[in-house]
Amino acid sequence: MSSDTRCVDGDRLLGDLASLSRIGGTAAGGVSRPAYGDLDVEAREVVRDWMRAAGLEVRIDAAGNTFGSRPGSASLPPLIIGSHTDSVPDGGRFDGPLGVLAALEVARTLNEKSITLRHPLEVVNFQNEEGGLVGSRIVAGAFEEEGLDLRAVSGYTIREGIARLGGNAERLNEARRAKGSIGGYLELHIEQGRILERAKKDVGVVEGLVGINYWEVTFDGVASHAGTTPMADRHDALLAAARFVDAVHEIVTTRPGRHVGTIGRLAVFPGGANVIPGRVMLTLELRDLEPAVVAALFEAISARADDIATKTGTSVSMTPTHSNAPSPTHPAAQDAVRRAAGALGLTTHEMVSGAGHDAQNMAVLGPAGMIFVPSVNGISHSPVELTKDEDCVNGANVLLGALLLLDSA
Amino acid sequence: MSSDTRCVDGDRLLGDLASLSRIGGTAAGGVSRPAYGDLDVEAREVVRDWMRAAGLEVRIDAAGNTFGSRPGSASLPPLIIGSHTDSVPDGGRFDGPLGVLAALEVARTLNEKSITLRHPLEVVNFQNEEGGLVGSRIVAGAFEEEGLDLRAVSGYTIREGIARLGGNAERLNEARRAKGSIGGYLELHIEQGRILERAKKDVGVVEGLVGINYWEVTFDGVASHAGTTPMADRHDALLAAARFVDAVHEIVTTRPGRHVGTIGRLAVFPGGANVIPGRVMLTLELRDLEPAVVAALFEAISARADDIATKTGTSVSMTPTHSNAPSPTHPAAQDAVRRAAGALGLTTHEMVSGAGHDAQNMAVLGPAGMIFVPSVNGISHSPVELTKDEDCVNGANVLLGALLLLDSA
Repeated sequence: MSSDTRCVDGDRLLGDLASLSRIGGTAAGGVSRPAYGDLDVEAREVVRDWMRAAGLEVRIDAAGNTFGSRPGSASLPPLIIGSHTDSVPDGGRFDGPLGVLAALEVARTLNEKSITLRHPLEVVNFQNEEGGLVGSRIVAGAFEEEGLDLRAVSGYTIREGIARLGGNAERLNEARRAKGSIGGYLELHIEQGRILERAKKDVGVVEGLVGINYWEVTFDGVASHAGTTPMADRHDALLAAARFVDAVHEIVTTRPGRHVGTIGRLAVFPGGANVIPGRVMLTLELRDLEPAVVAALFEAISARADDIATKTGTSVSMTPTHSNAPSPTHPAAQDAVRRAAGALGLTTHEMVSGAGHDAQNMAVLGPAGMIFVPSVNGISHSPVELTKDEDCVNGANVLLGALLLLDSA
Repeated sequence: MSSDTRCVDGDRLLGDLASLSRIGGTAAGGVSRPAYGDLDVEAREVVRDWMRAAGLEVRIDAAGNTFGSRPGSASLPPLIIGSHTDSVPDGGRFDGPLGVLAALEVARTLNEKSITLRHPLEVVNFQNEEGGLVGSRIVAGAFEEEGLDLRAVSGYTIREGIARLGGNAERLNEARRAKGSIGGYLELHIEQGRILERAKKDVGVVEGLVGINYWEVTFDGVASHAGTTPMADRHDALLAAARFVDAVHEIVTTRPGRHVGTIGRLAVFPGGANVIPGRVMLTLELRDLEPAVVAALFEAISARADDIATKTGTSVSMTPTHSNAPSPTHPAAQDAVRRAAGALGLTTHEMVSGAGHDAQNMAVLGPAGMIFVPSVNGISHSPVELTKDEDCVNGANVLLGALLLLDSA
């Protein structure tokens, strides 16, 4: 495979990955490089140096995203490839950097093999993906300016963070790109689940990114003294919430499909060991590629919540907080990924991305696609996050091949 | 009733209650006077002044408890009556002060009616009842000295608090009393539940104080990404904990009896809305007058917890943390309360105290009894805590009558 003239230099890519992971590298073998912190700033500078060394023209947009450009032979909108280099706190080495460094390696390979694309090429390193796809959201015009004062994990507000990365929060409009202004977007990313590993496939052809809908659910009962309130007199908000958690699981697992439902946060008030809970607040999250599936699940869950509240002498409210619309990838991009993998002798698996990625914002602007490579044991956002060397290199080669197919289409 | 020569001055008692509630009185109509804080110190000084004005000989023991003594005619161990004047933060006006001020009013009444008891009488104001029955625990020799450095709600350690109240933490042994060294103990207290109100009875004859057993329960699963982990691959610690909460309720309510089971605290880790919970820690509290009932409940709960863990792919541990043994009151004291109420034309109701009280420590030293009066709507530890004037006075009169019966027995 490596004898193919259209393959990247795998050792160079793996070397870059290892080098970058030293910035914010943790004793446990992972990376902790939250957006806007000193280590994020440093890693992004290193990537810009590498872009320049690869002959790319480097630009920081008003949002603080980095773009490294390479001209095309025709007057066409650019093809964009990349991902992000920020990480969750105490995260892994692959979530984000693989996509950025593979894109850089693709650009180097094009240079070395003297391949001129018809489209201009841009290698992108989006900012603050982990904090809500902030950089790509700004580019897609989907960022609400009220969000600028939200504080990121690093302690900086998004406004401060944009300045730290060389952007200008007063001029975010300049970072926006118009619908139809890009020729395509491709992102290589680790799967972060174990679907590929279980299916024993090399490459995931991503059919779309699920929509994510969040609700804040509150059960209100009556807080009272555990010793002096007989069982029959209680209005226990935690009993209601517990039945709700079980009901969500039952409703979600009874319906066939790839949707998931999660309750990840739950707080009990007042929270004393000897006080019957008067209030429980929890988050409900539903994900699917089809909005109709999410709507049907929510309808069933909502009816059950009312029933539980009645039976436990409590009341319940369910307030939608935020949501990301589902984002199908473009058939041409899916096809390019499938064909590129096939040409390399790699097996493919059609799958949905359960996680959010910058690709979902870019899909609003033009044909977007994603390439997944396997995560060992499906673990991500953890120091033990691992994608095998061979799979990293496979992913970069599929990215190169799919890019060439999209360029010639 | 008030024409009876052996009745207290109800208006004076209600006046004292109103006066004392101004120290730490809250805008909402309650009292916030946590142990060892300035307001607790001030209220205790006021009560000592009132004791002296009533002709009692005032003493502060090494634990910081206040005793006001009145001699008896025979060489007998003392009868002790009282309660506490500290409150929970943002609590009510009756929980504690009613018992202290009624005891003081009983002593005044004895003086005014020139009644000499055979036993010496002591009116007690125990310290830090709300923080774990600290004062009475020291008197009963059940306080572990390691507890001296625990910080109370007021911000002072128990050691510091004892000094602030005029005690001496280096000489706590001097505050201990020997088993058999007291002739009896009677405590008037508000019920803090709504059993009397529902039963439409004037006075509760307390058969005993429940034992309270706490466990810390931990479910361990696997934290993972909500978007990339299919439902079938999850090891959701919160799903397991939710089923546990429901199972505890079912097991506790299925068995007939007055026992209660409560889960008041529950924490989810890591607690992100988009992360499947990897660990849930919660408290289990079981209360009953019979240790065998608690043991049987725990056995059933423990078996069910194992079953839930197996079915959810999690593991569970249940660690006993602390417990108070159940404390039956003395038949002679119960009988004195019942007869005193009957002589006043008041209706009585035999009941268990689901809450802990200083009486449970005093029960170790001699025959102890408790008198409950109704709480409106069963609400306590709240600014709206309320016991009607008539019920407060009834309680004080029953305390007087029961004391006279015990003294003559």
